[in-house]
Amino acid sequence: MMNQLASSILQWLDIAGIAVFAVSGALAAARARQTLVTFAFFASVTGIGGGTMRDLLIGAPVFWVHDPVGIATCLIVAGLVWIIPSRFWPARAVDWFDAAGLAAYSVYGSAKALALGVPPLPAAIMGVVTACVGGILRDVLAGTPSIIIRPEIYVTAAAASSFGFVGLTWLGMPVVMAACIAAPVGFALRALAISRGLALPAYGR
Amino acid sequence: MMNQLASSILQWLDIAGIAVFAVSGALAAARARQTLVTFAFFASVTGIGGGTMRDLLIGAPVFWVHDPVGIATCLIVAGLVWIIPSRFWPARAVDWFDAAGLAAYSVYGSAKALALGVPPLPAAIMGVVTACVGGILRDVLAGTPSIIIRPEIYVTAAAASSFGFVGLTWLGMPVVMAACIAAPVGFALRALAISRGLALPAYGR
Amino acid sequence: MMNQLASSILQWLDIAGIAVFAVSGALAAARARQTLVTFAFFASVTGIGGGTMRDLLIGAPVFWVHDPVGIATCLIVAGLVWIIPSRFWPARAVDWFDAAGLAAYSVYGSAKALALGVPPLPAAIMGVVTACVGGILRDVLAGTPSIIIRPEIYVTAAAASSFGFVGLTWLGMPVVMAACIAAPVGFALRALAISRGLALPAYGR
Repeated sequence: MMNQLASSILQWLDIAGIAVFAVSGALAAARARQTLVTFAFFASVTGIGGGTMRDLLIGAPVFWVHDPVGIATCLIVAGLVWIIPSRFWPARAVDWFDAAGLAAYSVYGSAKALALGVPPLPAAIMGVVTACVGGILRDVLAGTPSIIIRPEIYVTAAAASSFGFVGLTWLGMPVVMAACIAAPVGFALRALAISRGLALPAYGR
Repeated sequence: MMNQLASSILQWLDIAGIAVFAVSGALAAARARQTLVTFAFFASVTGIGGGTMRDLLIGAPVFWVHDPVGIATCLIVAGLVWIIPSRFWPARAVDWFDAAGLAAYSVYGSAKALALGVPPLPAAIMGVVTACVGGILRDVLAGTPSIIIRPEIYVTAAAASSFGFVGLTWLGMPVVMAACIAAPVGFALRALAISRGLALPAYGR
Repeated sequence: MMNQLASSILQWLDIAGIAVFAVSGALAAARARQTLVTFAFFASVTGIGGGTMRDLLIGAPVFWVHDPVGIATCLIVAGLVWIIPSRFWPARAVDWFDAAGLAAYSVYGSAKALALGVPPLPAAIMGVVTACVGGILRDVLAGTPSIIIRPEIYVTAAAASSFGFVGLTWLGMPVVMAACIAAPVGFALRALAISRGLALPAYGR
């Protein structure tokens, strides 16, 4: 039963990750005054880019190729962002949706890797890399400087969630509990970066 | 027999897609005053990038890794573009070759995905994404702003071809006929964008 | 016995390729005054990006996902570059480490492809493409113009190593000897480009 709960929480994290990353992609398209089709393209690349990279790396079938739910979520999100007037979206909405996606995907990516027998270190790294891929692709496509090269906490937040999750489960904590601790920690770190400019010290000070 | 015809038309679309995308890549290298080796690199990345992404996503063996024809086509194209004087290439030749590749690959990508049992929605999306990947990689490598973020019809043309093809075959139309309708429709849309500036309405008008 | 020697030389080339590319990635992060986490991210993407692309393309399990050595190497390198004062790194150190990685990976990438039954032409191309992927990703992430589009010899050096290696083994030369000839040739070409500005003629002169 615990297992079933864990599985449904992980599944929820997956859909939540897709949806919030898709929103952040569609909002980036809105900010760049793009068309509806580009909204769909940006939402999809951002929403499923990370999970796609994860599945390719761990050798799993790419999730959205065999189950239309993931891609349908992205297209619906693109349509909603297109029709809901922009004044309903707070000024830094892209950042906040991206932060939620980052935390959710860090944990989900690591969990899926562990479940497929990947050793702890690569599994944690996989959580980080795949959580960051959607946002990086969105930034590269939109031609904006990637968040990766700003001192603001970003990759660090993903690392906190995925290394935290892998570490806690490695210590024997049930998956659900580890996810419920690790995801909020990463989100909180990223939230401090967005609201207070929390940053790591840069090289050479 | 119909099946054999369908298969040979699809195979022709594949080689045509590789060749015209390769030409567009090599011409981009020419425009940037690159060297012969960079011509070959650009032609290859643009020519086989889309099909490579498609094969990775649907879990098929990457086509050019096991059959040298695809990569040889790209290298030959690079050599031809290098030696044929540039006045023989019309001013917007990159755009026109890219348009032909876009239409051919949208249909071929969707067809290969359907043939491997991918459901209709992801199969159509796959046609779009893979048709656009070669050109995106070319633009990112060349450091030019990606066509994806301009209002001009581009992704839309790919979508018209691949959704059209998937829709027509889903309605029961034979593959050959569906391909012969869907590819020209996408090409025509893109042609209107190149020649008349046909564009979708942008967000916020 | 020869076979065992060949295998251990190839393994050494692999780890050497990871390490020197990782150094070049971490130094790029240092030059951009990044944080420790970004050092780790850049070092990893640059160090294992090429090998990852190679394994995906030839359908092999991605090497660092199942064996933590590769990713651990990248993280250790990132830490070392962070703590060793920058005056210990020569001015063009990124270029020189990148050159060593380029030569090592060109040979190793081709060798692994051949070992898995890939035909000669794609195997040689694979050496080139995978040797260049780490550096390209590093440049794209760092937002610096990619080396690929400068006239300086770069892709050519990778091509010399990988086509040379494939050609020599195809002529019957033992793998070890072919590697010991082909890797230095590519490195020397790139060294001439770094130190003397050796470049191919550009299109249109």
